Amino acid sequence: MFTSQPIGFVSSPYKRTGEIPKGLGAKHEAEGVLKILPEFEPGLTDIEGFSHLIVIWEFDRSERFELLGTPPSDNRPHGVFATRSPRRPNPIGLTTVELLSRQGVELHVRGVDMLDGTPILDIKPYLSSIPSEKLRRGWLAEAEARKRQ
Amino acid sequence: MFTSQPIGFVSSPYKRTGEIPKGLGAKHEAEGVLKILPEFEPGLTDIEGFSHLIVIWEFDRSERFELLGTPPSDNRPHGVFATRSPRRPNPIGLTTVELLSRQGVELHVRGVDMLDGTPILDIKPYLSSIPSEKLRRGWLAEAEARKRQ
Repeated sequence: MFTSQPIGFVSSPYKRTGEIPKGLGAKHEAEGVLKILPEFEPGLTDIEGFSHLIVIWEFDRSERFELLGTPPSDNRPHGVFATRSPRRPNPIGLTTVELLSRQGVELHVRGVDMLDGTPILDIKPYLSSIPSEKLRRGWLAEAEARKRQ
Repeated sequence: MFTSQPIGFVSSPYKRTGEIPKGLGAKHEAEGVLKILPEFEPGLTDIEGFSHLIVIWEFDRSERFELLGTPPSDNRPHGVFATRSPRRPNPIGLTTVELLSRQGVELHVRGVDMLDGTPILDIKPYLSSIPSEKLRRGWLAEAEARKRQ
């Protein structure tokens, strides 16, 4: 296995976990900056051509993992691999962001939901989507339906 | 930072890198099994309700990273963070698969592009898509256009 190393850090408006919008209907419209370390700058070549990026990052302020937990969007417990809980066996987070602009090693993006200072592990281009009519969203769709009742 | 640990392993028809479809128009329709280690089984609770999963895994047979590389889909070099190259600073791969069925700790899925025996680091539910009309795909769209000419 490998030991993770940061390729950069997130600059985000969120300083504390409680400030991040969570639960049903939460919108992630916040703007932030992915500040890549200078030694990795060549890896950003041609990234400007992509509208959306997948950011893989580390839940560096999360402790222990919890295989069953109750997410903010429901009042019932679900398995960690069926949620986006921070308490995961490998503390890896994933966020899809919209790339607004690049200035050297700084990627200005919309849609951050990470804490300020979060270590970035990887960035990949977002290449294709599952058509919405083919997507089933399990307990989350059920929790949304219960909320609407 | 953290040291990665496998939560399970991929059972895939691909034994060698050369067997995995790559490049422009490559289809990932292969079926495989995500075999989760028994101690993590409670983490799979309610996963059956999701049609698609994001699998985060380790490029365990990839060596060194390369910040600029020429992908199989183009004859020009691009930055590693603008490609899905295996030679990444953190050797983390990501694949979206369709969940066909669950049998205990075995998730039968369609769309694997990993080698047989690949360590799985995390599984997350696929919750939403970027509408295709909002997606720009940079050098990849350009390489596709050149190929059609």
